[in-house]
Amino acid sequence: MNTAVKSQKQLARLDSALASGTLADVASIVSDLSPGDVAHLISSSPPRYRHVLWSLLEAEQEAAVLNELPEDLRNSFLADMAPEDLAEIVGQLDDDDVADILQELPDAITGQVLSIMNEQDRARIETVLGYSDDTAGGLMSTDTITVRADLTLDVVLRYLRRHTEIPLNTDTLMVVNREDRYVGLLPVRTLLVADPGVSVREMMVTNRDPIPAHMDSSEVARLFERNDWISAPVVDDDNRLIGRITIDDIVDVIREEADHSLTSLGRLGEEDTFSPVLHTAPRRAVWLGINLLTAFIAASVINAFQGTIEKVVALAVLMPIVASMGGIAGTQTLTVLIRGMAMGHINERNQAWLVGREAMVGAINGIIWAVVVAIAASLWFDDITLGLVIAAAMVINLITAGVSGALLPLLLQRLGIDAALAGGVILTTVTDVVGFLSFLGLAALAYG
Amino acid sequence: MNTAVKSQKQLARLDSALASGTLADVASIVSDLSPGDVAHLISSSPPRYRHVLWSLLEAEQEAAVLNELPEDLRNSFLADMAPEDLAEIVGQLDDDDVADILQELPDAITGQVLSIMNEQDRARIETVLGYSDDTAGGLMSTDTITVRADLTLDVVLRYLRRHTEIPLNTDTLMVVNREDRYVGLLPVRTLLVADPGVSVREMMVTNRDPIPAHMDSSEVARLFERNDWISAPVVDDDNRLIGRITIDDIVDVIREEADHSLTSLGRLGEEDTFSPVLHTAPRRAVWLGINLLTAFIAASVINAFQGTIEKVVALAVLMPIVASMGGIAGTQTLTVLIRGMAMGHINERNQAWLVGREAMVGAINGIIWAVVVAIAASLWFDDITLGLVIAAAMVINLITAGVSGALLPLLLQRLGIDAALAGGVILTTVTDVVGFLSFLGLAALAYG
Repeated sequence: MNTAVKSQKQLARLDSALASGTLADVASIVSDLSPGDVAHLISSSPPRYRHVLWSLLEAEQEAAVLNELPEDLRNSFLADMAPEDLAEIVGQLDDDDVADILQELPDAITGQVLSIMNEQDRARIETVLGYSDDTAGGLMSTDTITVRADLTLDVVLRYLRRHTEIPLNTDTLMVVNREDRYVGLLPVRTLLVADPGVSVREMMVTNRDPIPAHMDSSEVARLFERNDWISAPVVDDDNRLIGRITIDDIVDVIREEADHSLTSLGRLGEEDTFSPVLHTAPRRAVWLGINLLTAFIAASVINAFQGTIEKVVALAVLMPIVASMGGIAGTQTLTVLIRGMAMGHINERNQAWLVGREAMVGAINGIIWAVVVAIAASLWFDDITLGLVIAAAMVINLITAGVSGALLPLLLQRLGIDAALAGGVILTTVTDVVGFLSFLGLAALAYG
Repeated sequence: MNTAVKSQKQLARLDSALASGTLADVASIVSDLSPGDVAHLISSSPPRYRHVLWSLLEAEQEAAVLNELPEDLRNSFLADMAPEDLAEIVGQLDDDDVADILQELPDAITGQVLSIMNEQDRARIETVLGYSDDTAGGLMSTDTITVRADLTLDVVLRYLRRHTEIPLNTDTLMVVNREDRYVGLLPVRTLLVADPGVSVREMMVTNRDPIPAHMDSSEVARLFERNDWISAPVVDDDNRLIGRITIDDIVDVIREEADHSLTSLGRLGEEDTFSPVLHTAPRRAVWLGINLLTAFIAASVINAFQGTIEKVVALAVLMPIVASMGGIAGTQTLTVLIRGMAMGHINERNQAWLVGREAMVGAINGIIWAVVVAIAASLWFDDITLGLVIAAAMVINLITAGVSGALLPLLLQRLGIDAALAGGVILTTVTDVVGFLSFLGLAALAYG
């Protein structure tokens, strides 16, 4: 039976076990699942089941499962643990994962956990803890195998045989000099096929430069993606090898970045799929409050034209159309920009081109739909002036949407503000205000 | 100098070379870049530079660069090539990448390219082409190293030495029986440290089940993510080993999936950051047209209350607030659902809980902001009735937003419709209609 089918069958059995409430059944199924599957099961369960599932885990499963859980869930389980249990669990994990966990805990507990560790482990963890977790240093593990360039491959092979285990995702050995400075990489695949008599120096790869520990994690992710790496060496400012980053952690970075763009566009903030009501409601309320404020700004524009609306009530009927079209067009542009920025596609060289393109697209689509809207509005209310007014407002608002949708994220980025997060709110305020103002303003002129 | 710094410096030099227009300079810089960097450079250049950059590549760079380009860009370069050049390029790529490329070409050209290949290559490519590119079979490469369980590790090591090269991302060798049926995996790390005298059977991993060729690619990606795999074996319905999937292709699947959620929420469809105006405008126009239709539906609701608006024109001022708050709240819920569905967190077992949670969150946030809005509206227009009406409409619309934002994607999924794509449009129509209807309807009752 294959993995997926098996795990699906087990999950189905689990469903019925959970439903009929026989905990012993659940425990026996959970003990057969892989750590990743258990973590997935816990994440996809409503809160009240989660602690039950966690309590069913065998001691040796805990560390591995913990490591696969999303950050906020992991922290909620960690918060309940004694420092001794924590120290035992972190002893089974990679340094970078340990550092992630410790960074989230109160300082006092981190100190306690570190003090229980042996000196060697502690020194390694402290190296990683010295870097922010959104840099290469925070992503790295110090668990590397290093060799010298003057050895022969045969000696390297015999050296490896003295290990009982090689770290996971070791596709390359790191070549360093006497001062531990990075020199190159020796792919394991080379080690397996090359003549054992030749030296590491002859076979090592030297055109792959190491990653500086301070590099931003999203930039590290882009390097991995572009070059299809499995692991990469990390060096400090003196080119000393201090660790390596592996693809499994990069996959998490990519997931988190993509998630951030999506939740920002959805006005959501960080949120677990199954957060309880009282956790979720306040976080979302903040965004709704900000939106309420901007909606009042738009409303005050309408308020200025009460007289015009009283005269031609059809304006009230049609005005949401202009605002809504601007909002959608602006969101389209903003999404292109957020996405391009996340992929590192946008730079000084192409910004002007992009703003120009968005203005053109806004103008073209504005004109196309303006014609349709003008005809529809003229026929509906038997009023050609109304058709002309809404058409003009539509073109104005869609060009505004294109230009501001492109300029805004570039401007916010330059100001150091998260464009994905703030962009949407500001943009829809702009398109609402310009939409109502152009439509009602032109109507005020036309109807006197 | 490290990778990123170097490539950034080169890109900066390239900027000035591109600006001053000395093609020879550009060519010499491009020839030093890695394939991934060249692909990145081409993707982040406006269209008119792209073909110039491509024409500067040396023949041996083309295949590798092509492989790193996004699909639509790759196809635009391929479209201009002669079948002989194509055959030569695809000869240098992995099967799964070749299959991707051939799938996008007209059948006649695919046939020509296949006919130029040698028989062995053709048979391998045809295996991959036999599967849809969104399944495990379409993602796999047939380039695997297989061994038998009864060999000793020493024999395996000597067998490997007869290769001149081992496929990239080979962290495990595949163990098969006489009928090529999958038996287990032999990690390369085991091979390096274990006693060479023991048999493969003793050291192989048997608890990792192979991936069936028909498994959906997004499910394959989740298995990789959950289990931190580098590569995984793929089998046909008879458990015969037909290939393996590697993490680099999984990273692309993850990126594409995340991108799909983002662009769907942004009403964008698939679009390259630098698509030319005439390519971009029509694609976005479709979404704007759909939105226009739904905006007219909402307008017709307002139209039914012309008399009420004429009586109390403040209703026209305030009504967009109710609709807008419903739209934001609904989008929040929809985003949680789209995200949860993409991560495979949502199932029969937790759907009801989720809909209930969203209804509660909608009610709580509805009440909180209804109070604020009621006070603001009462004071602004000196009319307590107006405040009560907008408060009631706000609560109704936010609960509607929560419930429909949660039910809609579940319903669409069951109907086989892409929830991310269709969800947003339907949802904002619902929140607009319910927002206007509840606000103006209650007002009509209140003001008689």
